[in-house]
Amino acid sequence: MIDCAIIGGGPAGLTAGLYATRGGLKNVVLFEKGMPGGQITQSSEIENYPGFFDHTKSGMDFMDGWQKQCFHFGLKHQMDEVLSVSKSDDNFTLAIRGKDPIVAKTVIVCTGSTPKRVEIKGEDEFFGRGVSTCATCDGFFYKDKEVAVIGGGDTALEEAYYLSNICSKVYLIHRRDTFRAAPSTVERVKKKENIQLILDTRPKEILGDTMGASGLLLEDKNGTTSTLNVPGVFIFVGHNVNNSVLKDKNNNFICEVNEQGQVVVNLKMETSIDGLFAAGDMRIDAPKQVVSAAGDGAIAALGAIAYIQEQA
Amino acid sequence: MIDCAIIGGGPAGLTAGLYATRGGLKNVVLFEKGMPGGQITQSSEIENYPGFFDHTKSGMDFMDGWQKQCFHFGLKHQMDEVLSVSKSDDNFTLAIRGKDPIVAKTVIVCTGSTPKRVEIKGEDEFFGRGVSTCATCDGFFYKDKEVAVIGGGDTALEEAYYLSNICSKVYLIHRRDTFRAAPSTVERVKKKENIQLILDTRPKEILGDTMGASGLLLEDKNGTTSTLNVPGVFIFVGHNVNNSVLKDKNNNFICEVNEQGQVVVNLKMETSIDGLFAAGDMRIDAPKQVVSAAGDGAIAALGAIAYIQEQA
Repeated sequence: MIDCAIIGGGPAGLTAGLYATRGGLKNVVLFEKGMPGGQITQSSEIENYPGFFDHTKSGMDFMDGWQKQCFHFGLKHQMDEVLSVSKSDDNFTLAIRGKDPIVAKTVIVCTGSTPKRVEIKGEDEFFGRGVSTCATCDGFFYKDKEVAVIGGGDTALEEAYYLSNICSKVYLIHRRDTFRAAPSTVERVKKKENIQLILDTRPKEILGDTMGASGLLLEDKNGTTSTLNVPGVFIFVGHNVNNSVLKDKNNNFICEVNEQGQVVVNLKMETSIDGLFAAGDMRIDAPKQVVSAAGDGAIAALGAIAYIQEQA
Repeated sequence: MIDCAIIGGGPAGLTAGLYATRGGLKNVVLFEKGMPGGQITQSSEIENYPGFFDHTKSGMDFMDGWQKQCFHFGLKHQMDEVLSVSKSDDNFTLAIRGKDPIVAKTVIVCTGSTPKRVEIKGEDEFFGRGVSTCATCDGFFYKDKEVAVIGGGDTALEEAYYLSNICSKVYLIHRRDTFRAAPSTVERVKKKENIQLILDTRPKEILGDTMGASGLLLEDKNGTTSTLNVPGVFIFVGHNVNNSVLKDKNNNFICEVNEQGQVVVNLKMETSIDGLFAAGDMRIDAPKQVVSAAGDGAIAALGAIAYIQEQA
């Protein structure tokens, strides 16, 4: 039986591992099929993680420093896929693909959420080099420049507004002529002079060259195509919360989640199940920032340590 | 009128400033009487902030990198003391010692909390060099070594237990022969074989030399003195929450606080007053870790930006 199973190897999971092992837990395992690091490793530049301000370094370089530190205190990495988590008596059982189940006293789930893509040509190629799914992270790189936003929901409109305070102009591309977003948000966006709505129009391709993205090929409802020359394209068409490990065999969640499938936690990152914690982008109200996910991870690990102490 | 007033210049306040300015707010002011940096600048070594793992660098060196980054995006530093915050109509008024009041659309309070001291000789001299008020931060530096814990409340006993999983032995020094802590916590501590209770005994002096602390001079209720040779002394005798700016002239808090004076927030760092946020060690359930305080600061700043957008 292990003390603490951490599922997911992004900033939240790595930090949870650092705090759990440095806090004296003896047998702490990070389950991550691939290389730890998380979504941030896809970024070409990071300037909003406090203490790290080197424009020559990529997201991959950034997380490189974390590996040594977070594994230094005894955290083990198991390159396996966790299929599900269940609780019976006082312990948790993790079903592992192709292997025997593992029993753990506490579990910290940090499997994140994955921004949906519009699935057009150039989207993958220029991701992290002009294509972004995070205005907070990348908006500032386009200060006083023009950008395009793709999407028509609340997040798309709110992020378009956020970007309009940084960028010289924001083109908002939406495939319909009405918005799903809240009416007050729609009104605010319509009133903002440097946001231009391009409605009834679909993105066809993200254009670019070796330097990164340079524009967006559009097609309106009549089939007419046009090109928008922008160095930045922000895509806000939803997120998939990676919560499948928290579903039982009847497809019910083992802990409380909200309508979007985000895990309900309190300020201690406790879920509705004792000994089960969630941290990072998969929880409710997550700001989807590295520093906040890391902060969550630390809190969850301290909670796991306290939980084990209380059971002693 | 400024967009956002940040009160307090520790990790939470600096990160809030980074996110508020990088997020497009034009006029963001950090109020901090002294040099920004916070409590962590008193530490001689930091190894639990993810991405920073250099044993040759002190807390002062660590925060040095933050200054350039957090002020890079237009954050202003005003070296004044904020006396109080009040809300009238939709805005906040900050009373400033010796100057005219300042009006702000949003306020983020990050004034932290200050660990109480026992006020004995050597305590200040060896602080950060053997004397600590944070087991999570510094416990690991005493792995497989003996340490002393001073205090008799819940925190002291919980932290003593936490340290007992890392250190070879923990001496718990308490001036009375009974504990204020919860009975179940007391039982658990008494059962732990490597925790030794030293009751009815007061600490008189922290001993040491140029290398740091080396022991503790004790005096029991009969006046007999003895010396405990330990390289680490952890003091848990309570915290003062620095919440005075949130009191009105009748000494009532302007927002909800708990019994300990910690500010009640939700996962968005929103207080009970719209437009007023709290972040870091002064809020309820704060883990008192740099990375979590920084995460709070980012969340609070994003909340302030969203609040201003909604008012537009």
